[in-house]
Amino acid sequence: KNIVLLPGDGIGPEIMESAKIVLNTIASEYNHEFTFHEHAIGGNAIDRFNNPLPEETIHACVAADAILLGAVGGKKWDNNPSHLRPEKGLLGIRKALGLFANLRPIKGFKSLLHASPLKEEKISGSDILIIRELTGGLYFGTPSERRENGDIVVDTLYYERHEMERIIEKAFQSAMQRKKLLTSVDKANVLESSRMWREIVDEKASVYPEVEVEHLLVDAAAMKLITEPNHFDVIVTENLFGDILSDEASVLTGSLGMLPSASIRTDGVGLYEPVHGSAPDIAGKGIANPLGMILSTAMMLRHSFGLEQEAAEIEKAVNETLEQGYHTADLQIKDGKLAGTKEITDAVIENLT
Amino acid sequence: KNIVLLPGDGIGPEIMESAKIVLNTIASEYNHEFTFHEHAIGGNAIDRFNNPLPEETIHACVAADAILLGAVGGKKWDNNPSHLRPEKGLLGIRKALGLFANLRPIKGFKSLLHASPLKEEKISGSDILIIRELTGGLYFGTPSERRENGDIVVDTLYYERHEMERIIEKAFQSAMQRKKLLTSVDKANVLESSRMWREIVDEKASVYPEVEVEHLLVDAAAMKLITEPNHFDVIVTENLFGDILSDEASVLTGSLGMLPSASIRTDGVGLYEPVHGSAPDIAGKGIANPLGMILSTAMMLRHSFGLEQEAAEIEKAVNETLEQGYHTADLQIKDGKLAGTKEITDAVIENLT
Ligand SMILES: CC(C)[C@H](C(=O)O)[C@@H](O)C(=O)O
Ligand SMILES: CC(C)[C@H](C(=O)O)[C@@H](O)C(=O)O
Repeated sequence: KNIVLLPGDGIGPEIMESAKIVLNTIASEYNHEFTFHEHAIGGNAIDRFNNPLPEETIHACVAADAILLGAVGGKKWDNNPSHLRPEKGLLGIRKALGLFANLRPIKGFKSLLHASPLKEEKISGSDILIIRELTGGLYFGTPSERRENGDIVVDTLYYERHEMERIIEKAFQSAMQRKKLLTSVDKANVLESSRMWREIVDEKASVYPEVEVEHLLVDAAAMKLITEPNHFDVIVTENLFGDILSDEASVLTGSLGMLPSASIRTDGVGLYEPVHGSAPDIAGKGIANPLGMILSTAMMLRHSFGLEQEAAEIEKAVNETLEQGYHTADLQIKDGKLAGTKEITDAVIENLT
Repeated sequence: KNIVLLPGDGIGPEIMESAKIVLNTIASEYNHEFTFHEHAIGGNAIDRFNNPLPEETIHACVAADAILLGAVGGKKWDNNPSHLRPEKGLLGIRKALGLFANLRPIKGFKSLLHASPLKEEKISGSDILIIRELTGGLYFGTPSERRENGDIVVDTLYYERHEMERIIEKAFQSAMQRKKLLTSVDKANVLESSRMWREIVDEKASVYPEVEVEHLLVDAAAMKLITEPNHFDVIVTENLFGDILSDEASVLTGSLGMLPSASIRTDGVGLYEPVHGSAPDIAGKGIANPLGMILSTAMMLRHSFGLEQEAAEIEKAVNETLEQGYHTADLQIKDGKLAGTKEITDAVIENLT
């Protein structure tokens, strides 16, 4: 399997090291062959090639079976013009590869739930999968421009039917493998695109009679995620609503640093990255939390390579590591053992073997 | 002062009664003259006039000094075609009157904070004013339509410079009267409209050097509202982001039923309504919580009539009522006194006089 590594900026390279170690361990335990090719993206690509997404990186990714991304961005590039911003690399690679489905599982870890901003009884037991459309909507619609000497501005929320159909199909399939409750989020009382979205959800619902479907307005969803996170199973929504709601949901469990994500398409090719950012303030200190990155490799094994058992092994090993009390500086565990990036990776490997 | 009352649907008429009683008390205590004219909006207007916003209602509102709205909507009209939906009345009146600034204060009540989904130490002390642009953006931009036999759909996020300027100006003025921290929320890493928004905020910042200005992406704002609600003072943002974030914020204190809102324009004319919905399930039972409506009348006295002292009196009376232990069924107070709509209104009046 040909895996492209995009370490990116800040703590990206450090946590990518951990991912490699974990994958090499899995490879030798299970007799797989993973080859790694490292390429530039984001801020460091701007510094080296004056381009957040060099051609060479795109080519490598197009040829890859799967891609691992560390994190991109940092204050250093914050005032760059928009085509020289690190996140252009991220948006560009999603679009170039057609990675239309962003999967964001939100699930707490028992030993970390005490750090949740929510009362423990509110959040415990929550297990949500947010499925965000990732290559359409306001992110890529045109026109997106100033008019009349810059006194008028428009952005365009654009969707084609097949773009809605494929993400909604993905959501129903995911719901079938889980608790079979699908919450579709839109703003159908205002947006024409949401009314089309709702129609397609209702059409597909008849193909999946076992799945219970509910429609929720995005404002109501933003409330209910906080008041009743336990209510949800699978949530599906368009690009920008998904951006906002998945980030909102990511802080509910109190351990953002643990969350993985996948951006995939129908043939199994996907890009996997932790939800947290590049944390430039702690970069190079050896204290970054690699567990979100490691759990992203598990998502890769599952979704891109169909290696369910190996994925589950990694998830189990991470869980055990926490239960043993190991935690990085961003996490607190009562009477736990504070560990650096390398130490906690070693502990995961120990539990894997 | 000519006040138009739009009781609306569900519990709207009951809580509007309470508002009238409170305003009549203020009128006689302070020697003001308030005249009330009641008109139809929302579901009941659909039932009676086949129009969620009858011409007559618009005319009355155009002639009014201020408008009080109860709540609109209910399951009964949920499957109507979009021009016969209760919320069309709400959107229509905002647009017809040019009520471009939606003010949503979020502040907890000591005796109710225990009901917050957040840990008490997270939420206590929070005092946020969300200022949402209310007549532009995706809500009213055209084209908003299907194309190519319905296989393509577009909505348009449209803003003119002066629309951004006036709401941002309002936000700076509000910040000057509060803690002088202004958080401007946008999605400048993706949207052209957000980049224009950010420019205007930065221009205005030089006019208000005392105000500390920060820019926050909407996804990051959705997180920070939960992890650090105490951080915020005034938040300003465009229409749809404001819709999502103000609803998200409204559940943080655990007493949605207490929150008022104002939708105003520059000359002081405004529409005032509680944040909660029409709650058709408890309508007519005499148990609805009128305090959000009553606090909305205080906002009206302050923003439309410049009656700061009278507004503060009402707020104090509501506070005292809670401290005395009175609460409606949607609230819990330890060793408190469960009261119906009328009883709790009486208690507020008692504290007012
Ligand atoms: C960096 C930004 C453009 C991006 C997005 O909005 O998609 C990020 O917030 C994300 O969710 O991956
Ligand atoms: C009813 C709906 C159209 C409305 C909006 O989105 O503006 C509501 O959610 C609100 O915030 O007042």
